[in-house]
Amino acid sequence: VDHGRLLVQCPDKPGIVAAVSTFLTKAGANIVTLDQHSTAEEGGSFFQRTEFHLAGLPAARDELERGFAIEVAEQFGMEFRFSEAAKPKRVAILASKADHCLLDLLWRDRRGELDMQVAMVISNHPDLADQVRPFGVPYFHVPATRANRAEAEQRILDLLRGNVDLVVLARYMQIITPGFLTEVGAPLINIHHSFLPAFIGAGPYQKAKDRGVKLIGATAHYVTADLDEGPIIEQDVVRVDHRHSAGDLVRLGADVERAVLSRAVRWHLEDRVARHGNTTIVF
Amino acid sequence: VDHGRLLVQCPDKPGIVAAVSTFLTKAGANIVTLDQHSTAEEGGSFFQRTEFHLAGLPAARDELERGFAIEVAEQFGMEFRFSEAAKPKRVAILASKADHCLLDLLWRDRRGELDMQVAMVISNHPDLADQVRPFGVPYFHVPATRANRAEAEQRILDLLRGNVDLVVLARYMQIITPGFLTEVGAPLINIHHSFLPAFIGAGPYQKAKDRGVKLIGATAHYVTADLDEGPIIEQDVVRVDHRHSAGDLVRLGADVERAVLSRAVRWHLEDRVARHGNTTIVF
Amino acid sequence: VDHGRLLVQCPDKPGIVAAVSTFLTKAGANIVTLDQHSTAEEGGSFFQRTEFHLAGLPAARDELERGFAIEVAEQFGMEFRFSEAAKPKRVAILASKADHCLLDLLWRDRRGELDMQVAMVISNHPDLADQVRPFGVPYFHVPATRANRAEAEQRILDLLRGNVDLVVLARYMQIITPGFLTEVGAPLINIHHSFLPAFIGAGPYQKAKDRGVKLIGATAHYVTADLDEGPIIEQDVVRVDHRHSAGDLVRLGADVERAVLSRAVRWHLEDRVARHGNTTIVF
Amino acid sequence: VDHGRLLVQCPDKPGIVAAVSTFLTKAGANIVTLDQHSTAEEGGSFFQRTEFHLAGLPAARDELERGFAIEVAEQFGMEFRFSEAAKPKRVAILASKADHCLLDLLWRDRRGELDMQVAMVISNHPDLADQVRPFGVPYFHVPATRANRAEAEQRILDLLRGNVDLVVLARYMQIITPGFLTEVGAPLINIHHSFLPAFIGAGPYQKAKDRGVKLIGATAHYVTADLDEGPIIEQDVVRVDHRHSAGDLVRLGADVERAVLSRAVRWHLEDRVARHGNTTIVF
Repeated sequence: VDHGRLLVQCPDKPGIVAAVSTFLTKAGANIVTLDQHSTAEEGGSFFQRTEFHLAGLPAARDELERGFAIEVAEQFGMEFRFSEAAKPKRVAILASKADHCLLDLLWRDRRGELDMQVAMVISNHPDLADQVRPFGVPYFHVPATRANRAEAEQRILDLLRGNVDLVVLARYMQIITPGFLTEVGAPLINIHHSFLPAFIGAGPYQKAKDRGVKLIGATAHYVTADLDEGPIIEQDVVRVDHRHSAGDLVRLGADVERAVLSRAVRWHLEDRVARHGNTTIVF
Repeated sequence: VDHGRLLVQCPDKPGIVAAVSTFLTKAGANIVTLDQHSTAEEGGSFFQRTEFHLAGLPAARDELERGFAIEVAEQFGMEFRFSEAAKPKRVAILASKADHCLLDLLWRDRRGELDMQVAMVISNHPDLADQVRPFGVPYFHVPATRANRAEAEQRILDLLRGNVDLVVLARYMQIITPGFLTEVGAPLINIHHSFLPAFIGAGPYQKAKDRGVKLIGATAHYVTADLDEGPIIEQDVVRVDHRHSAGDLVRLGADVERAVLSRAVRWHLEDRVARHGNTTIVF
Repeated sequence: VDHGRLLVQCPDKPGIVAAVSTFLTKAGANIVTLDQHSTAEEGGSFFQRTEFHLAGLPAARDELERGFAIEVAEQFGMEFRFSEAAKPKRVAILASKADHCLLDLLWRDRRGELDMQVAMVISNHPDLADQVRPFGVPYFHVPATRANRAEAEQRILDLLRGNVDLVVLARYMQIITPGFLTEVGAPLINIHHSFLPAFIGAGPYQKAKDRGVKLIGATAHYVTADLDEGPIIEQDVVRVDHRHSAGDLVRLGADVERAVLSRAVRWHLEDRVARHGNTTIVF
Repeated sequence: VDHGRLLVQCPDKPGIVAAVSTFLTKAGANIVTLDQHSTAEEGGSFFQRTEFHLAGLPAARDELERGFAIEVAEQFGMEFRFSEAAKPKRVAILASKADHCLLDLLWRDRRGELDMQVAMVISNHPDLADQVRPFGVPYFHVPATRANRAEAEQRILDLLRGNVDLVVLARYMQIITPGFLTEVGAPLINIHHSFLPAFIGAGPYQKAKDRGVKLIGATAHYVTADLDEGPIIEQDVVRVDHRHSAGDLVRLGADVERAVLSRAVRWHLEDRVARHGNTTIVF
């Protein structure tokens, strides 16, 4: 319970690393690991992630935040956020009919690989309910059609709001509206079944087959109002050749999708991902 | 000198493998390896590559081709081509200022990895002449500007025509006109410094940096009239992260470019690449 | 039901490809794909795998085999085997406590990726019974200790004999005795959690950590009387660094293990793997 | 010229990061990047690499070192080393007949990818002299046989001693004696043509072929008195299959060897590699 993380972001200037590490050390914390990144040699943005041990962190956290705001953050114009490793993020997973990404996340969670608490699974289809049941997670079926989209989104928002810190789209095949993004109050991570920016939009495996590419891939990214254009967290690829049908690409791609999505989710849960414009820094 | 290859292509129907292999066996050839591909379960195109040993192949080749045309090719509506492994293809390499792809091809050739005879290097810059000299290959400097493009292309065509079986664009940074493609009389292989179809056009590494991708790549493809749209022969990628500048991507990408291009050239030289519309079959 | 496969193996000599393909064509079969390999330029062994369509294969198979034996196999000293794609192999999966390889095989089977019929799961622990139940596969708990090994092996043999075509050791942590191999009457595929031949024996991840390797891997191989020395079917690796603990290697390695094992099983099920001494040919 | 690096190593305890960063900041340095690693949660060794800018570093360095020794290093029982990025390491490359690793290093150096000054190339064969000449580096031919080993080593030591900061064995096929290691006064990096610890010793590609592995690799490591047992800096692999002869493995492996060696050398030149027992930390 004494394991904490501190994320900071500010305009780059000399002395930040020393100021942050001195503050933590004086507060009695032991720095376990410290990563930082500056986006340019001069005039860039500075990002830092620090993991530390501090005896009695839960009780000390409020004072730590107050002290940091006054003693460090102000002079550097810093945005910052403390988090406690002992408080796992609450996660909702949205899926449709494909099971591979959903099951992989639930399975990794059960093994203890992902530091999260899965609050619910929501699907626009009933198909996966039986597979989710053994994991002891609530499954909500919210049918979604072109006709009832607004109503369906509202039902999903009612389920999510206040209950989750992260929404994972695990091959959820419905459009997310800008209004939904505004209302949901938590970041969304999506898995796109292509190596973005190649093959944006629907049917990427068929497009990949038609174009004759020799590698196919998958991309996990934060969801923004621009479809398939959000900050990329992780990508990977697998080799294919002329003998593979579009169906084979779907099968081979599924393995990449679940691997890429689970890594992205893991890194987010560990507060390793900072957003910088339309890109990410993954510590 | 007795090692031959037979490439065939025709509408798919039953009996082709048997017909081809029986013909070769009756002609006294020993089939060393035989690969085939059909593009669809029904109504597709059929491709086959056969390597064989035939004692006295150089003398027997004309009769072999005549016989094959009459006994096999006609009934299946086949296009076919015999080639002798002992007659390496004559290759021209076109480069600009970047040395990595050019040198890698020359090194591999000297080491005996590529079964080719490099007839000439042509560059629109004089810079690489010193580096090419030790390899004993003629270096032609053909300055090319927007103003003299037609004239420069004509000079290059004069150098190439009748002298080469393959033209390799080893990071040659000049536009190839449709007219050039029509005139040159040999296939062209280009290396594009991105994982096509992502980042088509100029400056792909900067585009990759701006988009925040987590892998960058390179693509070797046959050149067609559509820029960066020709049939892809080979692709590969390398992992990058937020710490890499656009300059780092150029450096890391160079290794992928030279590896991908050399594999594509090698496969072409061994008659392993068949074109099917805008895609390739690589046996 | 008309999709068949023919596997042949014999001393290499000219004319085999033609003889086999002519036989099949005359028998009315359409060759879908044909792969072959010769282990040496002269005096080697020859291997061929042919997929074909033959209308009415189930009824015609006996005659096909008789004909092939007389007309082709005899003259070439061939071992051969016909199989029907419509008759999936019966598979037993042996596991212990680790779930990742077992579940991945069951998931892929449910999704239709593996052409098999899982006859049973056998484990020396009861732990995974709940996870297997939803898949509708019998789960047999056969406790195994140093004291009761012979008895436990006998119980397993009683379960397997005559009921399975393949036994998959999905991280089954018990020694397989030579006697068991002799009795079981089906091939065994094991997944070893290292990149063999590195780190043979127990505790490979800890050994890898101690040695400071930068990649860890997994190896799927046929089981022979020599521990970890059987013919390798498939291997893969994942990058690690100094920050990874031995526990992290276990976690990262698990993904490689399940991927490698599922590919090896898939290839075996499709009759793609030929054994040649202590190595394999994977068509 | 104002870019410096500080490497420290000591028993782990709280406050090191703060102490180091505060010292540097007070000294007027701007920390550019800071990486650290602790080998265990408790009682481990601590390693840190810090890059910084300090105006007037060359003149200030002596005082910086004195100050650091007194103010920081003493209380933590620290070993430390300052280096200046503007002073590239002097490197000797030892080769035999194979050119790929040697040429790749020289070529990367010419491109500016490696921050080194190649002082000399030494070979026990004259073969590569012509290829080295265009790079403007002295080439010393020191014949080495079983009979004259002691004498040859002495000649090499005479060439190296005091002149180099790093010795790279670029497929140098002579045994390095413990006496040589003691005398040479600089670290040695070797490239072994296998994925260590698999296939230790001579002929690894033939051994790999015989064992039927599906991936082959290369390993760059510091040379110690135990053959092929030194701390591993970098490894990589490439996929092979049954169609590849031992000669093909040599060809494919050469690409991995040069890539792996050049990365290891690059990281060493940038002071990124710390040794911890028989393993490395690569920042």
